[in-house]
Amino acid sequence: MLVTDLYELTMAAIYRRRGMEAAATFSLFVRTLPPDRGFLVAAGVDEAVGRLLAWQVTDADTRWLATQLGTGEDTFAPLAGLCFTGEAWAVREGTVVLAGEPLLEITAPLPEAQVPESMLLNAVTYQTALASKAVRCVLAARGRPVVDFSLRRDHGLEAATAAARAGALAGFAATSNVAAARQLALAATGTMAHSYVQATGDERAAFEAFAAAFPASPTFLVDTYDTAGGVRAAAAVIQARGLAERAAVRLDSGDLAAEARLARRLLDDAGLPAVRIVVSGGLDELAVDDLAARGAPVDVFAVGTRVGTAADAPSLDSAYKLAQYHGRPVTKLSAGKGYPPGPKQVWRRPGAADVLTPRDDQGPPGARALLEPVVRGGRRLRPAATLAQAHARLAEGLAWLPGEAKRVRDPVPAVCVTGERLKRLHEEVRAGLRTASAPPAAVTPG
Amino acid sequence: MLVTDLYELTMAAIYRRRGMEAAATFSLFVRTLPPDRGFLVAAGVDEAVGRLLAWQVTDADTRWLATQLGTGEDTFAPLAGLCFTGEAWAVREGTVVLAGEPLLEITAPLPEAQVPESMLLNAVTYQTALASKAVRCVLAARGRPVVDFSLRRDHGLEAATAAARAGALAGFAATSNVAAARQLALAATGTMAHSYVQATGDERAAFEAFAAAFPASPTFLVDTYDTAGGVRAAAAVIQARGLAERAAVRLDSGDLAAEARLARRLLDDAGLPAVRIVVSGGLDELAVDDLAARGAPVDVFAVGTRVGTAADAPSLDSAYKLAQYHGRPVTKLSAGKGYPPGPKQVWRRPGAADVLTPRDDQGPPGARALLEPVVRGGRRLRPAATLAQAHARLAEGLAWLPGEAKRVRDPVPAVCVTGERLKRLHEEVRAGLRTASAPPAAVTPG
Repeated sequence: MLVTDLYELTMAAIYRRRGMEAAATFSLFVRTLPPDRGFLVAAGVDEAVGRLLAWQVTDADTRWLATQLGTGEDTFAPLAGLCFTGEAWAVREGTVVLAGEPLLEITAPLPEAQVPESMLLNAVTYQTALASKAVRCVLAARGRPVVDFSLRRDHGLEAATAAARAGALAGFAATSNVAAARQLALAATGTMAHSYVQATGDERAAFEAFAAAFPASPTFLVDTYDTAGGVRAAAAVIQARGLAERAAVRLDSGDLAAEARLARRLLDDAGLPAVRIVVSGGLDELAVDDLAARGAPVDVFAVGTRVGTAADAPSLDSAYKLAQYHGRPVTKLSAGKGYPPGPKQVWRRPGAADVLTPRDDQGPPGARALLEPVVRGGRRLRPAATLAQAHARLAEGLAWLPGEAKRVRDPVPAVCVTGERLKRLHEEVRAGLRTASAPPAAVTPG
Repeated sequence: MLVTDLYELTMAAIYRRRGMEAAATFSLFVRTLPPDRGFLVAAGVDEAVGRLLAWQVTDADTRWLATQLGTGEDTFAPLAGLCFTGEAWAVREGTVVLAGEPLLEITAPLPEAQVPESMLLNAVTYQTALASKAVRCVLAARGRPVVDFSLRRDHGLEAATAAARAGALAGFAATSNVAAARQLALAATGTMAHSYVQATGDERAAFEAFAAAFPASPTFLVDTYDTAGGVRAAAAVIQARGLAERAAVRLDSGDLAAEARLARRLLDDAGLPAVRIVVSGGLDELAVDDLAARGAPVDVFAVGTRVGTAADAPSLDSAYKLAQYHGRPVTKLSAGKGYPPGPKQVWRRPGAADVLTPRDDQGPPGARALLEPVVRGGRRLRPAATLAQAHARLAEGLAWLPGEAKRVRDPVPAVCVTGERLKRLHEEVRAGLRTASAPPAAVTPG
């Protein structure tokens, strides 16, 4: 069965029955940023495009709908075989985007453009939320590696793969999720659990066995009983096996800054200055920032649940709005929800704010267009970005962003300004809505 | 590839190489409740059991792991073919559970019990979070129907199905997600979008077309331009078509209580007292409670993003802890993380707090055991619960809970007390850990 909201199908059925199949343009964008976000990282756009090209309404779908809604079979029959034959413009995966900037614009006969709304928003909203959270961890870590440990509390296995991918896009060094690592060609990372130490009984024996099996880069979990004892046991194994350049210890509880200082001192005293310290346990970008700001001797930050669920902002205020129908720009009068009408373009200028314009605008001098055609005639124009490409795109965006937008604490959101021509168009359409009994978008149905 | 964290596999490889294959029991439980939760609703337990019985380590997995970690092929080779042959006890899907109460206990040879940790936590944590949020909406609605509109911002399509299922378990009347509705045999619900009214141009014409296509129970979205005009247009169509007993209007913006009062008055004035009012737009259980407490004339609450992502608590403080190994109860000394050792049972007493005991305890008189055997010898003992069974189980739990735990605002969490025998066992094991150089759980490997 097609994954969508029922209303997309009831509307589309009416559109088809009434011949309302003129071209419609919808804009997918985020209205406002959550608190503590100075910018967003577009993710899930390529998956959305993949979903856009994959759906089709089947006969089985239309029969099921007719039964569900108690209509005759002919109500939904006009939808059978419906699929996407239109055009899509999108920002590249990994692009830094701001409130009000379209990530995706779809133009197609109205029913085809309406039905995929829910599946597109679903792909883009949560993945953009996850990538936008992950990049804040990378910024907070100030160059030190961050790794993803979130699998166990992400919202399902699909979401866990997306979290690993969002982390990699943002610059994480590895993930603990082996399925995601294999699927996405990421580095897999992991150490041992407290239960391993408990089952073995003796820390020294547990660490010995681990080092024997995994001598390449063993990480010893040192806080099962007490950290000092754990670090000493690890140090003994590291020295006995000559692992000083390859080993690490992990701290997973307590005051991580204090524990890290203790571990660092004990390791240094043992002549093991190159042994790294990994910390984990409920970390998010604010905790990473605290540790980094306090000078805690941490070498690797393992972030999990709070990042993999984007806990402070698990969703975004995303919207998929009709911008044009039958050649006429459309907007809405509802309080606070007005959005500039028509197909749009976002222009990124070096050292200046983005500008939102009608799509056919030439743009300011020296600016680069963020939206590019990705689908035409129902076919993809270019393959999905690789993770390396998406990461490079993000790096460009970060280099462009003002410093205050990248701050982990109290960031000042970067903004997109609306160009004069688009402002005038918006005003004209709103004025038409206010005064006309039939608004400018009115089109006599078929 | 197996979906798990890398460390489960490195530990399991060591266990197998060293012959540490004695029976281990792990408890899966939630340590503490999030703020604003007086109880939890166990969900995802049946899916976790399904995952437990479905995984197997393949030769391809072990080869990939050896390459990833730069070990010889023989390091992971002992894992090839590993699957679950043990036993599981679980609470029934839909059971009301409290902090510290095991939802699932696994007993199996140590490597088999270790590997599934991440996949079990993943299934149970987010689904329990979603169901525990959804039931609060049902409680807040005071008997009025609640429906799920969350698909577009849930964390993927798997999570959207889980959200629809969690809602149904909690008592929601329907979902907008047609794929979930079809898969889970739920009622599908939906109305129309603002874009439908915009594309049609004229509200009256849009509502006419909708009523013609879907006369069984049309819901008209009345706030695209202004609510009063929208309600009048809907009322005209309802009267013209004789839909007074079957129609509804939906409000999706503004001050919903005020808008609902306005809509109610206009509908009543038009002689349409039976036309229902549906509200939507960023609702969660607190907003539903506000509307209900203020006496807003709302007939159906459509909840979305905030409920489908459990926005205030998108994860739970879940844990999977080694409780026994090789016949010896195990605990941990780490500050604040101590958990009673050994296989356990939770006893639910009429009108009194739950009691946590060793599993072989007889339990207090008149109490009912919440954990039941569900897998033995790697085989399921009973099928997964139907949604109706899970909902009935939840209803029993709600009837048992004290009123203060069910309050939407400032709930007082219901608690589980630890029985005297289990307390003594816990103290003995902790004392052993503190004093012995080899803790009581120590087992000489191999």
